[in-house]
Amino acid sequence: MPTIDLNCDMGESFGAYTIGDDKAMLELITTANIACGFHAGDPVVMRETILAAKAKHVAIGAHPSFMDLYGFGRRRISGERPEDIEAQIVYQIAALQGMAHALSWPMTHVKTHGSLGNMAAVDPELAAVCVRAIHSVDPSLIFIALPFSETMKAAEKAGLRVACEVYADRSYDDAGMLTSRQQEGAVIHDLNQSVDQVLSMVRDGFIPTTGGLKLPVEAATVCVHGDTPGAVDMARALRAALTREGCTIAPFACPAR
Amino acid sequence: MPTIDLNCDMGESFGAYTIGDDKAMLELITTANIACGFHAGDPVVMRETILAAKAKHVAIGAHPSFMDLYGFGRRRISGERPEDIEAQIVYQIAALQGMAHALSWPMTHVKTHGSLGNMAAVDPELAAVCVRAIHSVDPSLIFIALPFSETMKAAEKAGLRVACEVYADRSYDDAGMLTSRQQEGAVIHDLNQSVDQVLSMVRDGFIPTTGGLKLPVEAATVCVHGDTPGAVDMARALRAALTREGCTIAPFACPAR
Amino acid sequence: MPTIDLNCDMGESFGAYTIGDDKAMLELITTANIACGFHAGDPVVMRETILAAKAKHVAIGAHPSFMDLYGFGRRRISGERPEDIEAQIVYQIAALQGMAHALSWPMTHVKTHGSLGNMAAVDPELAAVCVRAIHSVDPSLIFIALPFSETMKAAEKAGLRVACEVYADRSYDDAGMLTSRQQEGAVIHDLNQSVDQVLSMVRDGFIPTTGGLKLPVEAATVCVHGDTPGAVDMARALRAALTREGCTIAPFACPAR
Amino acid sequence: MPTIDLNCDMGESFGAYTIGDDKAMLELITTANIACGFHAGDPVVMRETILAAKAKHVAIGAHPSFMDLYGFGRRRISGERPEDIEAQIVYQIAALQGMAHALSWPMTHVKTHGSLGNMAAVDPELAAVCVRAIHSVDPSLIFIALPFSETMKAAEKAGLRVACEVYADRSYDDAGMLTSRQQEGAVIHDLNQSVDQVLSMVRDGFIPTTGGLKLPVEAATVCVHGDTPGAVDMARALRAALTREGCTIAPFACPAR
Repeated sequence: MPTIDLNCDMGESFGAYTIGDDKAMLELITTANIACGFHAGDPVVMRETILAAKAKHVAIGAHPSFMDLYGFGRRRISGERPEDIEAQIVYQIAALQGMAHALSWPMTHVKTHGSLGNMAAVDPELAAVCVRAIHSVDPSLIFIALPFSETMKAAEKAGLRVACEVYADRSYDDAGMLTSRQQEGAVIHDLNQSVDQVLSMVRDGFIPTTGGLKLPVEAATVCVHGDTPGAVDMARALRAALTREGCTIAPFACPAR
Repeated sequence: MPTIDLNCDMGESFGAYTIGDDKAMLELITTANIACGFHAGDPVVMRETILAAKAKHVAIGAHPSFMDLYGFGRRRISGERPEDIEAQIVYQIAALQGMAHALSWPMTHVKTHGSLGNMAAVDPELAAVCVRAIHSVDPSLIFIALPFSETMKAAEKAGLRVACEVYADRSYDDAGMLTSRQQEGAVIHDLNQSVDQVLSMVRDGFIPTTGGLKLPVEAATVCVHGDTPGAVDMARALRAALTREGCTIAPFACPAR
Repeated sequence: MPTIDLNCDMGESFGAYTIGDDKAMLELITTANIACGFHAGDPVVMRETILAAKAKHVAIGAHPSFMDLYGFGRRRISGERPEDIEAQIVYQIAALQGMAHALSWPMTHVKTHGSLGNMAAVDPELAAVCVRAIHSVDPSLIFIALPFSETMKAAEKAGLRVACEVYADRSYDDAGMLTSRQQEGAVIHDLNQSVDQVLSMVRDGFIPTTGGLKLPVEAATVCVHGDTPGAVDMARALRAALTREGCTIAPFACPAR
Repeated sequence: MPTIDLNCDMGESFGAYTIGDDKAMLELITTANIACGFHAGDPVVMRETILAAKAKHVAIGAHPSFMDLYGFGRRRISGERPEDIEAQIVYQIAALQGMAHALSWPMTHVKTHGSLGNMAAVDPELAAVCVRAIHSVDPSLIFIALPFSETMKAAEKAGLRVACEVYADRSYDDAGMLTSRQQEGAVIHDLNQSVDQVLSMVRDGFIPTTGGLKLPVEAATVCVHGDTPGAVDMARALRAALTREGCTIAPFACPAR
């Protein structure tokens, strides 16, 4: 039976504002993607999240985004030069890497957030920007990317290591992309169905698509949502199911390099 | 004759906004303190400033500040926990260090900005916060500090290397502190008098005070303003005068470590 | 038996971030102080808060602050010119007033937030700044102020109407000021004791002080916290106790002018 | 000979940052569009700009934008609900209106900024959002809109008064829209040609298009850029040419209503 990682976005609180139950999630996941102050997070939240992850031996990575606190990185922003977006991503990764180093819990990876991630997944130029940014800070960092995405292709082309990420609660189209949220059935609400899908992808090695295809996939990590209602219960159930099936739950990258 | 460094704050533009004539100043100085996005600067400005400094072999360092773009870091902000300010400083240093590393022009030092610097110079607790932040990111970084300041004392106590900084255009009181700007004669407007004061400090090794004392000092760097009217002319005249007197103008830290 | 108002700070969410249970509090209070986007709040939150208050016939006012989202307006900020702080307050009041007008639920008052309020209460110059700002936007606005404060004095001097505000859960010193939170007994945790204090102030017309004095007061409104744990329960108990004692709970200003 | 207005964007400085030579431009123009703190401007800049305009009898209006200081309102932002953008526009107009009222120089109009304006000009839904926002604050406000644009149509449909705006230095396509900046000849660099185009539009009542058409137009105001190199010289030349041709230069709306 395979080893699988559970990753979750974290450290998305800001100042007096709290989002997500990071404490509870850290008991369940193996990899945390930490916001870097652009769509969420601030230096204090970052420090506390790094220390909390370290205490639970959860691997950490940077979760860069567009500079958009108001929109939580979910607004689509265009009109910037590629090299300027690259500088923004470098800045965020560097800030988290330096803080992680100072707290003796080195970061292992990068996962892009929200609109930046969504747009890069289908835009070769933006995907290349993300890859170049990561590579320039530290070529040993692992990039969490979706199967069949432009980000995946750009990372492989650049020789960057990739952790292939799958979703428990989203359906896939025949091209292996996440079905648009505008479409019926895009989000899987039934827990058993979610677990079944994860087992197909993790244990059996294929993505079941809405058109009935079985696309081959080597899943390294499952995305667990942290800021939706019932997020903690969902993560707990998923973890229990995977363990029951004989999967080993462990980070895709060893945090204490 | 001694070697002396000229340092200047840089990279303080933001988005569509420009402050200072960095291009001209980079021809004259040997060390640049680069804003890190909290009181000024943004990732794009930081990248361009690092590259411009590299092209001129000017040493670079982080110029962290309170989180206060509106006030340009000049407003006095209190009521935060020391460890939270430390996290903010770590974040800023780390961001610049990572960008500098990615651009192959490693940073050599840190200089605090505006109110953060002014408050730390007279507050032992805040001074210790700054020193801890720098040390935790990289203990080989050099801290630019004022003679007789709490920051100087905290750095020496922690074993952090210090570059002692003097001002050409500010008078000093008998305790060796900068005279308050509220006081008559705090700012020296006469260029010849400025040059004389610098020569006293750099060549002769003492600070002339308003009370007529001569306080011993080992000046490593002279602060050159970048955003005042006539800043470039002032820097040019100072550099010419020091060269004429036989001083070698060079960075206090070798940028290409 | 007297009429008394219950006021609460509201609309302090921001973007994806939520603070406070405004919906529940609007069932219990009679006056809402709405954040204006500087320490908290944004245009969308403001609109929704105004509409929710209107639906419950709760009077609304502006809750201006220092420009400090990160610090939630609780950091003490100094070093600005008085007229610049005045412009910031005018801006915030005007923004809320215009939105309230557009939504046909006119605002009735102003209450300063956090550090701005705390600092103005003891600083005659800053108090005058607040009063001038309010007066210049609309001299018919009512200013919520603490008894014996500099803000109260400045408002009376300028002929601005004042709603005198008392606290249920804070003890008072012999000068009629709130006891410092650093001091033992500053916060009253016992609900019965809180209700008793409010009844002394509202029904009997005096503030009981820590030194045993009874200072005369004409309380118009009681501050109810909205973002502390148990805030809703506390407000419900206070409202029930006041009603039981025969007090009429009503806004100090009629919202539908 | 006709009367024509010259409008210019103003008050786009922020904190320590300065953009544009507002003082010089106020000698030349008759209507100022003042930034409201979202893409540029802050309460202090707004106050100073209102007072400076008042001193020169220049009419003022709000210049709302996306919430995007970093991008100066030029980044295209999407993914927000129309009613949320409406709230943001209402907020900005209200803030300026209240400040203008407090300073006894009432605002007369609204002009959208940057990407918000560009996107609304071709998007009927976003155009309707802008019009609803203006109307809800004050239906007597005049909306500066481009001929043949969706904003123009939406304003007319809603019964909002419009000031039709033409450009001196941009060419028009056969649909009456500004030629894309990506196209050759989109920007007119020759001053004489600019003046000729303005005279065609103002005196002769038609827009000359790139395809040789003459589209009828009733121009109320000419946009004068404030933040480009040579902006002041350009405005001065344009004003002189229009005066020489016998045009009266005056605001399209009387500022002292």
